[in-house]
Parts: sequence; structure tokens; C-alpha cells
Amino acid sequence: MIYDFTYCNPTRIHFGRKAMDKLPEELANYGKNILLVYGKNSIKKNGIYDTVMRMLHEGGKNVVELPGINSNPRYTQVLEGARLVRENAVDLILAVGGGSVVDCSKGISAAAYCEGDPWQRYWVNQEPVTNKVVPVASVLTMTGTASEMNGGSVITNEAEKLKLGRVFPLELMSPKFSILNPEFTYTVPKHQMVSGIFDIFSHLMEQYFSGDDDCTSDYLLEAVMLSLINASRKALVNPQDYEARSNIMWCATMGLNKILALSKTQDWEVHMIEHQLGAYTDCPHGIGLAIISPSYYRLIYKYGLPKFVRYARNIWHVNKPGLSDEQIALEGINRLEAFIAELGIPQTLREVGATEEMLPLIAESTIKGGGYHVVNTDEVLQVLKNCF
Amino acid sequence: MIYDFTYCNPTRIHFGRKAMDKLPEELANYGKNILLVYGKNSIKKNGIYDTVMRMLHEGGKNVVELPGINSNPRYTQVLEGARLVRENAVDLILAVGGGSVVDCSKGISAAAYCEGDPWQRYWVNQEPVTNKVVPVASVLTMTGTASEMNGGSVITNEAEKLKLGRVFPLELMSPKFSILNPEFTYTVPKHQMVSGIFDIFSHLMEQYFSGDDDCTSDYLLEAVMLSLINASRKALVNPQDYEARSNIMWCATMGLNKILALSKTQDWEVHMIEHQLGAYTDCPHGIGLAIISPSYYRLIYKYGLPKFVRYARNIWHVNKPGLSDEQIALEGINRLEAFIAELGIPQTLREVGATEEMLPLIAESTIKGGGYHVVNTDEVLQVLKNCF
Repeated sequence: MIYDFTYCNPTRIHFGRKAMDKLPEELANYGKNILLVYGKNSIKKNGIYDTVMRMLHEGGKNVVELPGINSNPRYTQVLEGARLVRENAVDLILAVGGGSVVDCSKGISAAAYCEGDPWQRYWVNQEPVTNKVVPVASVLTMTGTASEMNGGSVITNEAEKLKLGRVFPLELMSPKFSILNPEFTYTVPKHQMVSGIFDIFSHLMEQYFSGDDDCTSDYLLEAVMLSLINASRKALVNPQDYEARSNIMWCATMGLNKILALSKTQDWEVHMIEHQLGAYTDCPHGIGLAIISPSYYRLIYKYGLPKFVRYARNIWHVNKPGLSDEQIALEGINRLEAFIAELGIPQTLREVGATEEMLPLIAESTIKGGGYHVVNTDEVLQVLKNCF
Repeated sequence: MIYDFTYCNPTRIHFGRKAMDKLPEELANYGKNILLVYGKNSIKKNGIYDTVMRMLHEGGKNVVELPGINSNPRYTQVLEGARLVRENAVDLILAVGGGSVVDCSKGISAAAYCEGDPWQRYWVNQEPVTNKVVPVASVLTMTGTASEMNGGSVITNEAEKLKLGRVFPLELMSPKFSILNPEFTYTVPKHQMVSGIFDIFSHLMEQYFSGDDDCTSDYLLEAVMLSLINASRKALVNPQDYEARSNIMWCATMGLNKILALSKTQDWEVHMIEHQLGAYTDCPHGIGLAIISPSYYRLIYKYGLPKFVRYARNIWHVNKPGLSDEQIALEGINRLEAFIAELGIPQTLREVGATEEMLPLIAESTIKGGGYHVVNTDEVLQVLKNCF
């Protein structure tokens, strides 16, 4: 069933090897003052920084820079960007990088003209944004989060040891335009590529594992899972396979531009647990998701057995005769775990810097929710211990 | 592979049993003068007309009406609407009906302030629209064309015996908002329901049968085909099954809002042939597509054999051992034909009013194109004869 929804996603996507050629005409739609937000040095090494700067200057723009955004963007960086926006009357925030840079840029947009404490209002209290926001746009250099076509903004408050996600309304905060060139992702190191791949896969599963009726969105989510698995296997063999990388990039965007989530209640608990893992360690987001997912799904599959059976059959082609539904569902999770191993991702929390002492702190601070089952602190702790 | 594209679809969809409640707040965004476009009497019988009129009057709007739009909307109706738009300085064209009413409304929008002959410029010559256009919005009462979320406008010029499609840019002409309540489709007669269902299925196949590499869009198109088949079978048993009708309605919109067509070259030849069938007979659009499709695909499958094998396997689960690729592909088309029979759709052109004398005229006037193979007049004639 398709339950009630309202959907409008106005992001303009420019996709392909020549997508950057569209940047000048897009920039012409905005005022002179641009805040350029980016990460570490990679865009300077691969030439993307120079291309963007040349186009900005040829367009007669004044450019203010905010470099150094972390893979888990920090609230202090949001505040710094917000100050730059106000001081320079910024007309457009241009994010050049991966999801963390785009997430940070949306946070800056919301925070710049916020009265009071933006962290408390927009991430802790999840208040609606009523202040002026500054348009955000992106040039994507890593794929995974779909931040290029949604309103998501996950920010880490280091002082409070909290990593909180905020999903701003699409019409308010989805980037005005995003430039997606799959070739830009060729130089991403392999461990970041597979982290991004599993982030995508996790988004798809977290939207999928909810509801128990026949719903078009579930078919679409299965389709992207199947395409992603095939493309990932090709990209592992040859990271410069354009076919594979372009499919992965589009799977990422489709995977969380919210059009496949319509009418789904969803279950984002794996992301909630990972956010707190990210607040306590430097574990890359997708790697954390991959470590936690099999453990989490082995906890909750019983509560949504028909859907886990469907998942095992349709995604992992579990069709051995004579298995019970429970065995089929568990075999599906086993195959998921095997795929994670195939991606070369670590399978335990200790490999990514977590200590036994951290586990209760992570479990306690995790926001509790769920889909087929709502978890408590003890259950989250058990999930963590089972993959420690 | 995902080939280069630019995509932006700004339509706001309100979906569900209470979707109409959003109409007043949407109307508040536009000026006072509304052109209300609708079809025959059905919206007066089922109360939708009264509800819309009440909301328009409560919103202080001046309403001009253009009733009587045909299932194949006529160019004379486009011109009549264009005159009403100019004479009443219309601020919003509100289409209440099925795809033909929405298509006609877009035609009116493009034609109203066009200098010169709109038919010649926008449908025959396919010139870009540079004149002012009037915003279009829709309240959907039948499902199939996805005109509620795309820029399509298929118009029949009776004087010239030509039915031509125009795909206006999404950002220019996609409805500003569309209201989709699956319950509104309950009262559509069964022959119109199945016509709509096959129109959707045809859109999916026509986007799917092109290209030969691994492309995420193909997985998504398969997903909607599978969901549509399941939902259609339930709707045949109980037309008031909300689960089934809501899935069908969303399959229709997703099926042709162009997000599943990205990077696909596509093959719209079945639609081209059917358009000319529609110019010579009163055959409902989806019925014509259903009659022509198996005959057309039996002509061209050899040119795209791997894709037809994939279609047979993934959509119709053809997995008998020992079949050659050609046999698998043909069995897939046989299953498609069986599905059409299951829908209770006539299988020959003579049943829908075509005469033998019409066939050469239809074949001659059909716009020739294709995907895996570009057809000529003789081949179109053969396709028609094979389903006569």
C-alpha cells in the first residue's frame, strides 16, 4: 500500500563526465558572494578545486573559503561557516566534496540566521526552521549519503559527544543543484569507496525493513539493492569502470532522495547506533554501519519475518528447498555478512578503535527507535557486544 | 551505465485519501483567475466537481470552465482553452480528470501566448517554448499517463488526422502540484481501469527495451513492472482494494515521471503506432497499446535479444531449462500476451473499430523510430496486420 505523503524534490541533478560544464550557468542564477566549503586536500590534488575556482572567478564571484571539513563534520565548523555567511552576506553555499561537506553546508545554512542556539533548536529539539536560509549547492566528489539530493545534515557535537542527524524539508534545504561526475570518484581510496557503498546499502535496507503489505516502494528499494550489488562487484575488480561507478553514484542518489521511501515507516536504528559509534571513535560511517548491520538484523528479524524472507529470496536468491522461514531469513543475513566480507570491510568494532568500555556508553546514548521492533538500551548493548 | 543527463522535476505530489485537503493551501499561492478544465460528467456524479468548486470559491477565485475534454484531447479544445486564458488573464489552469485533461491543460498553457500557429510550432516542429506559459496543476481522477508529474501533452488534430505527442521540459510544464487520491479511481469503469494499467505497463517497457549494458534504471523499471502486475491482479478481483489501487496509482506516476528513464535511449514506437490508431479510431489509448505491443515486440526482439531474455526471466519468471535464448524471449512475449488477456483487453484491431483499409493509412502516417531497430512503413504495416 502507498500511505499518504507529500513529496517535492526540486534539486536539479547534472550527471555525467561533462556535468561540471553546467556549473557556470548555474552560478549565474545567484548573487556574487559564495562560501566554498570543502574537506581536506584531495580536491586540490585532483584539480577539482582549480576548476571550480576558475569558474567562480570567471563568473565574477567573491569567494570565501571554509576548508578542512571532517568526515564527521563538527558543530564548531557549522558555527564557523555560519559566521562567514553573516559577515560576507553569502548568496550561495557551494559544497565541493562528499556527503559530510554537503551535510555541513546545510547545517551552516540553517544556523547562519538562527536566533538562539542552532544545535539545541535544530538538532536536539528538531524545531522547524523559520529563519532565512542560504541556498546550498554541491559538486560531489564521493558518493554514499545522497546529501546531494536530500535535506539531511548529520553533525557531530564534540563537546557533548553527540552525533545527531537532522532531516530538513526537501523544498527548504535540498541542494538547488548538484553536479555528479562519476569520474571524480575514481581517486577515492578503496576503503572510502566500500564505506560509501555500504552506506548506500544500509540506506536501502533501513527504508525497506518496515511495513508488511505489498508496497511499490519495496520493489524499487530491491531494484537499487540488486543494481548496487552488481555494480559494486565490478568496481571492486576495476575501480575505474565507468559503468560500475556511474551506477553506484546513481544508486546512492536514488537510494536516499526519499522517492523510494514514500509511504514507508522505515527503521533507522542501525544509523542511530552508528552515529554514537562515530561520536566515540573515528570509524568511517559506512564501515560502522557494515559492522553493526548483521548483528542488528539478527536481533530483529523475528519481528518482521515475512519481510526478511522476501529479502533473502529477492536480494540474495536464497532458494534452497526445505528451509523454514526462519532459516531462510537467517541465511539472507548470512549472505549480507558475506557481501560485507567481499567488500573487504572489517567485521568487528575492535578493529575500528572501539573499546569494551565504550560499548555501554554508546548503547546508553543511542537514540532508541526501530521498525518491526523498538529496541532498548540492553538490546543495543547486545547488538554491540555481538559484533565487538 | 548511467549516461549523461540533467534532471529536475519540481511537481509537488499530495498522495492519499486526504490529499484534497491540501488544495486550498496550494490555491493560495496563485492569483484569482482559474481555468477549470475537465472531461465529461463523471466528476459531477462523484462529487469531486462540487468539492473543487467549493474550495475555489472559498479561496475567492474567479472560475472559468472548459468542460468536455475528450479521451483523445483535440486541438480545437486547446485553442478554445487558450482563448479563455487570454480573455480572462488566467493565473492557474487546474485540470480535474485523467491524463487527457492534464495533457490538454499543458497544451493550453503553451498555446495561449504563442505567436503564430501553436500546432505547427509546438507539436509538428517541436520548437522550444519561449513565450509566457501559465502554471498548470491537477486533481487526478484516473491513472495511467503520469501527466500529473511530467511535461507530456498528446493532442489530436482532427482536421489533419494526426495525434502528436509533445514532451515539454519538466521545469517548464510539469504540474506545479498534483492531488492523487486512489479512491477517486474506484468509480472508473473496468475497461478504463485496464486501459490505464496497460498504458503504465507500456510506458515501462518502452523505457526498458533499449541499451545493452548494466544500468540502474533498468532494475527500477523492472521493479515497477513487478509491482504493477501484482497490484493489477488484486484490483481485477476487487477494484476497491485500496492497497492495489494506491500501488497502481503510484506505479503510474513513477512509471513516467522520467526518473526511471534517466540515461535510457528508450523505444516509443508502440506509442507512435497507437497514436495513429487513435487518430483513425476511437480506440482507448491503453487498449490500442495492448493490442499492438506483442505484435511489435515479436518483430523487434531479435535485435535486442539479451534484453528480451532478461525481461522474460525477471518479469515473467521464464526459467524452464533447455530453452534457447530466442525461445526464452518469445516465451516472455507470450506471457505478456497472456497478461493482456487476463486483464480482459481485446486482442485484435478489428475489435476496436479498425478496418483493413485503415491499416496502410495508419502505417504510412506513423512516425518511424525505434530502439534496438528502426522500423519502416512495411514493418509497421506488418505489425498492424499481425494483430488485425
